[in-house]
Amino acid sequence: MKPSTPKGTRDFSPTEMVRRNFIFKTIREVFEKYGYQPIETPAMENLETLTGKYGDEGDKLIFKILDSGEYFESVRKDLKEDLQSKKTSLLNLEDENFNKQTLQEQWECIEKIITDIKTQDVTKHISEKALRYDLTVPFARYVVQHQNEITFPFKRYQIQPVWRADRPQRGRYREFYQCDADVIGSDSLLNEVELIQIINDVYTKLGISVTIKINNRKILQGIADFFKIKDFSEFVTILDKADKMGAEFVRKELISQNILPLPEAGMFSTLFFESPQKELKAAIDQNKLNLLKVWNEDANSEIGKKGVEEIEFIFSQLSNIQYPTSNIQLDISLARGLNYYTGAIFEVKANDLQMGSICGGGRYDDLTGIFGLPNISGVGISFGIDRIFDVMNELNLFDSIGLTASITKVMLAHFGEAERTYCIGVASQLRVSGINTEVYPDITKKISKQFGYANKKQIPFVIVIGGDEMKTGELTLKNMISGEQIKMKVDLIISKLI
Amino acid sequence: MKPSTPKGTRDFSPTEMVRRNFIFKTIREVFEKYGYQPIETPAMENLETLTGKYGDEGDKLIFKILDSGEYFESVRKDLKEDLQSKKTSLLNLEDENFNKQTLQEQWECIEKIITDIKTQDVTKHISEKALRYDLTVPFARYVVQHQNEITFPFKRYQIQPVWRADRPQRGRYREFYQCDADVIGSDSLLNEVELIQIINDVYTKLGISVTIKINNRKILQGIADFFKIKDFSEFVTILDKADKMGAEFVRKELISQNILPLPEAGMFSTLFFESPQKELKAAIDQNKLNLLKVWNEDANSEIGKKGVEEIEFIFSQLSNIQYPTSNIQLDISLARGLNYYTGAIFEVKANDLQMGSICGGGRYDDLTGIFGLPNISGVGISFGIDRIFDVMNELNLFDSIGLTASITKVMLAHFGEAERTYCIGVASQLRVSGINTEVYPDITKKISKQFGYANKKQIPFVIVIGGDEMKTGELTLKNMISGEQIKMKVDLIISKLI
Repeated sequence: MKPSTPKGTRDFSPTEMVRRNFIFKTIREVFEKYGYQPIETPAMENLETLTGKYGDEGDKLIFKILDSGEYFESVRKDLKEDLQSKKTSLLNLEDENFNKQTLQEQWECIEKIITDIKTQDVTKHISEKALRYDLTVPFARYVVQHQNEITFPFKRYQIQPVWRADRPQRGRYREFYQCDADVIGSDSLLNEVELIQIINDVYTKLGISVTIKINNRKILQGIADFFKIKDFSEFVTILDKADKMGAEFVRKELISQNILPLPEAGMFSTLFFESPQKELKAAIDQNKLNLLKVWNEDANSEIGKKGVEEIEFIFSQLSNIQYPTSNIQLDISLARGLNYYTGAIFEVKANDLQMGSICGGGRYDDLTGIFGLPNISGVGISFGIDRIFDVMNELNLFDSIGLTASITKVMLAHFGEAERTYCIGVASQLRVSGINTEVYPDITKKISKQFGYANKKQIPFVIVIGGDEMKTGELTLKNMISGEQIKMKVDLIISKLI
Repeated sequence: MKPSTPKGTRDFSPTEMVRRNFIFKTIREVFEKYGYQPIETPAMENLETLTGKYGDEGDKLIFKILDSGEYFESVRKDLKEDLQSKKTSLLNLEDENFNKQTLQEQWECIEKIITDIKTQDVTKHISEKALRYDLTVPFARYVVQHQNEITFPFKRYQIQPVWRADRPQRGRYREFYQCDADVIGSDSLLNEVELIQIINDVYTKLGISVTIKINNRKILQGIADFFKIKDFSEFVTILDKADKMGAEFVRKELISQNILPLPEAGMFSTLFFESPQKELKAAIDQNKLNLLKVWNEDANSEIGKKGVEEIEFIFSQLSNIQYPTSNIQLDISLARGLNYYTGAIFEVKANDLQMGSICGGGRYDDLTGIFGLPNISGVGISFGIDRIFDVMNELNLFDSIGLTASITKVMLAHFGEAERTYCIGVASQLRVSGINTEVYPDITKKISKQFGYANKKQIPFVIVIGGDEMKTGELTLKNMISGEQIKMKVDLIISKLI
């Protein structure tokens, strides 16, 4: 039986690793360019740190870890005592007093005990740790735990895998990486501006043309005020479906759920779902903004006014970005699912490919409150590595940015033992000069086998060492793509390959 | 209650991350210089992939993951049927036939069922996945699973965390990183030579002076042949304790376990435990080698002769290394605990600090056989990141190689909103030139607060923007370490900081 990885998990081959590492490196460098610092948290968190933070559905998807050692020791001890007493009372029944009724009752007690240890209740006793489900909750835990060592505002990034017991399907895995940047302890809108710059810089460097959609929960609140919507959270939940289900679905849903009366729904739809101008490039759609202002004035919504102010400030500051390549636009239909957002929200889509969002984020007012440190505002974004990888793959971007599959620059081939020994010296010189070099390890007269190896590994250059080369020091460098061959001394080869 | 990480696990702060990342980057770059390619495997493996690979003790230290969903569903179903039948038979007992004997028997059946679900047997039903315990077994699984996609010889490196349910203590964690490089599908000794070069290069770059100890299991077999030692595996196990328990302990143990008769033990000790020459620098101790040769001849040990040949070849090839800085020596007392080694074995110690081994490895003849791909020889090494970190910390090497705590090069401070807006433009210019730049996010007249932030984060340069600076474009760059201040245009600042 061939071994395999667990359902929903993957191995990454060298070629995939080169590509994924390129994406990670790009994101990491941009984060650091803006002063974000790396942290790492353990794969395991205490169960109580994670449960209750992701809703009932989320809780079910947390991977729990069995306690090590005698898993059932404590359970066993409790039950042993319980059972012992039941047994005693059963066996002590006087024969004459025995009847099925008593046996039935005793039996039910025993069944209850068995049920207890069979059902999930027992997991309380056998699992006190779980794998992290996202990077946000561990980050909140980190901030509270280390609050006295941290310099606030704290700008951190974190690139680590997370685990979810989701049903695996195309593009959805049980283990996947998240790439998060958050700043916590500052309510300055400059952070929002810089996060948008970061998104723009990352996708520019990766060569992916994107649209960055921006909205603000406060603007949505203003709209809710104007339309006298009572259940704001339900309103946001329905709006959040626009992307997947379409504008018409949302309009109908708002009506059928009695959130918007029929005539008002039309007015609302016009504002929300008219196609945004494609070529805005970090300029705001003034018409929409003006309509929002009228509504906020009309409903006297302070929070709505604040939202419009914030969005105007962000766009005004964005005009200072050098070389923005992304399309940055206000999208009033953007809602974002998570309910802890309270201010600006972001979502990014690739322009040249139909694909879900490849980055998202927003501002939250109280993330660390759950761990006892209330009222610390923060804002953050998260990049979806797997989707970015898929986009780049499907658009052939890895090739067009010239990312080679091989990390090795040159391989040394040889005709025998003496030649291989000579190779070690040459390889050492190349490596000292910073050139990634392989010596074909096995001794074989079959030079074609060695070339086959280089070809399969897509190594771009090969040097063949034979008796002549050892005598003269003139080595033949073969370009494996063009087939071109040049004879020269090792110093010249080095200066050519560097 | 303050939140915390699970026992034996750690958070890594930005300062620790900068240092750890430096170590990882150094190792990764050296691996790649020798043609090793990265792979990654999932944190979870199927339980059957891991169990039985690490011995009974190891198996107990594997962290198991609870199956998601209805953990006990299948167990519950089986037991329900079982219990139902017991209950029926109990209740169907004719009153007149009832006696304590029967009840006792029935009771024992019930108890057995309960015991089954209470004991670890139940984990078979509730856990089919576990966290990886090392990188070697997942690598073997990877090679077998992907054998048709792999170009052999396959040189791979892998840097990922592993998890062990060990009792945590100083320097021993339940989550820690391993850094492995292996080549599989080649029995060429060139691989051993290159792995020694890799070890030398890594520690040279990290600034750690080390001794690389080399031995060969075949040499140990030759010695076993000469002394007519029957239980080779026991012999190796006892030798392996030399490092921790000392030479005298091993000598006594070999005698008391009847592995070496008393007079021979003395002869043996002389060879094994005389202090190795400190300044060998990749030269072999000829006296020891000659004695080994005599013994091999005497015992007519073919395997012993092979071992000596191999070690001579490795040292002869090592003379081709440019700039070896490590002390590389044959250490016949080196045994290595793992029983899958069959050829060369390595272990590395820091010269300037008492600490366990900081790198180890060796050749194995059949790692993938357990997964159905037999007789593929390989050789590999593994770096211990936590110990390397500790060595560098205690020897102050991070400081002496000039690794700064701050990733940010310069922070922009400002006196108000207009100034902060001006900062965004300046920051953008600096970042485009590759300089990691922060703008202090919040608006505050208190410039000392902004300097305090820069100081705490150990940011080396600060630029203060006020009204004058905005007018003239002449900015003041302050060196936070020397206190020096220079006024200049942004272009000059860039060329100074790059």
